[in-house]
Amino acid sequence: MNHATAQSALTAVKDTSPLVSCITNSVVTNFTANILLALGAAPAMVDIVGEAGPFASIATGLLINLGTPTPEQREAAIEAAQAANDAGVPWVLDPVAVGVLKHRTATARALLELKPTAIRGNASEIMALAGTGAGGRGVESADDVESALDAGRELAATYGSVVAISGPTDAVITADAVVHVGGGSEMLTRVTGGGCALGAVIAAFIGAGRAHGLTDADAVAAAHVAYSAAAEIAAAQAKGPGTFSSRFLDALYLLRADDLDRIPLS
Amino acid sequence: MNHATAQSALTAVKDTSPLVSCITNSVVTNFTANILLALGAAPAMVDIVGEAGPFASIATGLLINLGTPTPEQREAAIEAAQAANDAGVPWVLDPVAVGVLKHRTATARALLELKPTAIRGNASEIMALAGTGAGGRGVESADDVESALDAGRELAATYGSVVAISGPTDAVITADAVVHVGGGSEMLTRVTGGGCALGAVIAAFIGAGRAHGLTDADAVAAAHVAYSAAAEIAAAQAKGPGTFSSRFLDALYLLRADDLDRIPLS
Amino acid sequence: MNHATAQSALTAVKDTSPLVSCITNSVVTNFTANILLALGAAPAMVDIVGEAGPFASIATGLLINLGTPTPEQREAAIEAAQAANDAGVPWVLDPVAVGVLKHRTATARALLELKPTAIRGNASEIMALAGTGAGGRGVESADDVESALDAGRELAATYGSVVAISGPTDAVITADAVVHVGGGSEMLTRVTGGGCALGAVIAAFIGAGRAHGLTDADAVAAAHVAYSAAAEIAAAQAKGPGTFSSRFLDALYLLRADDLDRIPLS
Repeated sequence: MNHATAQSALTAVKDTSPLVSCITNSVVTNFTANILLALGAAPAMVDIVGEAGPFASIATGLLINLGTPTPEQREAAIEAAQAANDAGVPWVLDPVAVGVLKHRTATARALLELKPTAIRGNASEIMALAGTGAGGRGVESADDVESALDAGRELAATYGSVVAISGPTDAVITADAVVHVGGGSEMLTRVTGGGCALGAVIAAFIGAGRAHGLTDADAVAAAHVAYSAAAEIAAAQAKGPGTFSSRFLDALYLLRADDLDRIPLS
Repeated sequence: MNHATAQSALTAVKDTSPLVSCITNSVVTNFTANILLALGAAPAMVDIVGEAGPFASIATGLLINLGTPTPEQREAAIEAAQAANDAGVPWVLDPVAVGVLKHRTATARALLELKPTAIRGNASEIMALAGTGAGGRGVESADDVESALDAGRELAATYGSVVAISGPTDAVITADAVVHVGGGSEMLTRVTGGGCALGAVIAAFIGAGRAHGLTDADAVAAAHVAYSAAAEIAAAQAKGPGTFSSRFLDALYLLRADDLDRIPLS
Repeated sequence: MNHATAQSALTAVKDTSPLVSCITNSVVTNFTANILLALGAAPAMVDIVGEAGPFASIATGLLINLGTPTPEQREAAIEAAQAANDAGVPWVLDPVAVGVLKHRTATARALLELKPTAIRGNASEIMALAGTGAGGRGVESADDVESALDAGRELAATYGSVVAISGPTDAVITADAVVHVGGGSEMLTRVTGGGCALGAVIAAFIGAGRAHGLTDADAVAAAHVAYSAAAEIAAAQAKGPGTFSSRFLDALYLLRADDLDRIPLS
């Protein structure tokens, strides 16, 4: 993974407008859709039983985020993941607050068996999903990224998923490699959906990346690079989380390939 | 329809603060309520079975948008439309992604039989609702406005509804006339709810317009003129969709009758 | 209650990052979470039956807002309030549009019997909850704050709750005292969630305040002072409700103890 690959992934998203179906929590639906639109992707929030499956099968990518999992959404999530698998559509699992609360934990485990293309979470969520941690403080992580690398590797090896752990420096993990993505802004933790929307961006990058010959792992890392670059640009113009939010959408909209050079990759 | 009529409709909305009950999708509830508040209308999101009907009957106007139609919302939508009809309250149907997905398609057809005062959608949605198209790409239109005019006329003739088709130039259709509204901004397609919130604005304009002797068709066209004028003002101040959103709310709040003159009407 | 007490309450919130569990309406979830994050609190929207109770018992404070009470949320609300009581976690009831619509009215009455730590509403809601008014116009108040003081005192005496009534000047009522909080901005009524998010802020202040020896009544009043101070700062920088929203989040993020001096207290 290098900057040129990340740049070609961004160009692929901007050029092809991948259709991303989202089953996500009620707090961040609006922000998530706006993030995708700003990037040039096409969001559709289809979380109704009987609709989620058929739509997932025609989408370019699918996000399943378990932040506020109503009974309807829990059933729709399983339906959508199965349909995505049948149709060869990549999908991302974001196991929000898994381990802490029972319904999302049960649904996350069922989804894991369906082998997500990618899994995105904070360190506590990744550890809880792998069965090696107790979960965080609600939606906040109680652990740091480095301490969750083994849990990430285990999930990657067992389920074949690309595992992304968000933190001050993000880690993108496969069974045999780890890429670290730096940069970004602490402001993303002061805006609700800063992490959740990244899950949808990952789905967009994997979907668009596949059509351009990128590996899923490179597409996941590229999504982090683009997200971090836009966050840095926005933070430089913001006074607080309110103006940051607006500027972040602007920055994603205006983001150019060479803006990605600023983000540390290792 | 002329600019003076549009101006008097805007004044009616600003002066009377119409109470608009909304059953709308989870992605755009917040944006829709803020659009109505900025315009001077009073939003209420009442989408609970057993509450939606009674509240619709005391509202000035009602919006039913089928973007994320849970079972609860599908039942509440029928209840609200029937109550609105019984009480003589005008209501707007926005058949999001109709034709593509089954539950919303069935609900949209049931609502159509209840004769909406107005129907708003993109070209693909209007064609699918009339039975002459296959639907769009999720929430995006795959067809252009002019190709959907016949479908719009058929819906208008059959159900007595004013039919509004959104696009670069909007069309407002009755059984025997078409008004075209130009202007606006492409930025509205880069913010989620750009179309959905217009449905709520239409409900506000019809409701306030009736009390001031406007025809429903004129009120629907006036809503488009006001929306487009505010979008143009906002776009001129924005760098991207984030700042556009903020400025659009400001522009609706500050909108004056003579700002409407800039919008082409034919 | 004086400014020094309000300042120490704000410092307590900023220093301890209270975890606030919210069951709130679909229109304002995003705004509410962002308000809490901007203030330095940690929001979690847990409104699922089977999860709401366990999570409320480990939170610092709980908000129950009845703005769009689905059957799932109504059941989760009772579960959460009981769990909060069992665990000694303070909780706030916001009875949106009580008296006007049946499901929320029934749920509000059941919650009242569980003795909320605090109740926040507009004048019409407080009067309807006390059984002395007919309710407002949807979410808007049809009554003024002073006319609801007796209803507030009755609720405070009967249920032991601190009762806060929002208006141009807010009133914070206990069985034997009333504190008036002035300042703020009319712009808060032009942004959806302006009142609803205050309920979550109150939960944060009570929770953090208890750990610092403040009375619940002082913490509730302090929440109003901080909210009004940030609103004034934001309004001075805004052109309309769109820019106000952004600036309000920034102002809460940047808010310092001595900013509270500007707010009239009596």
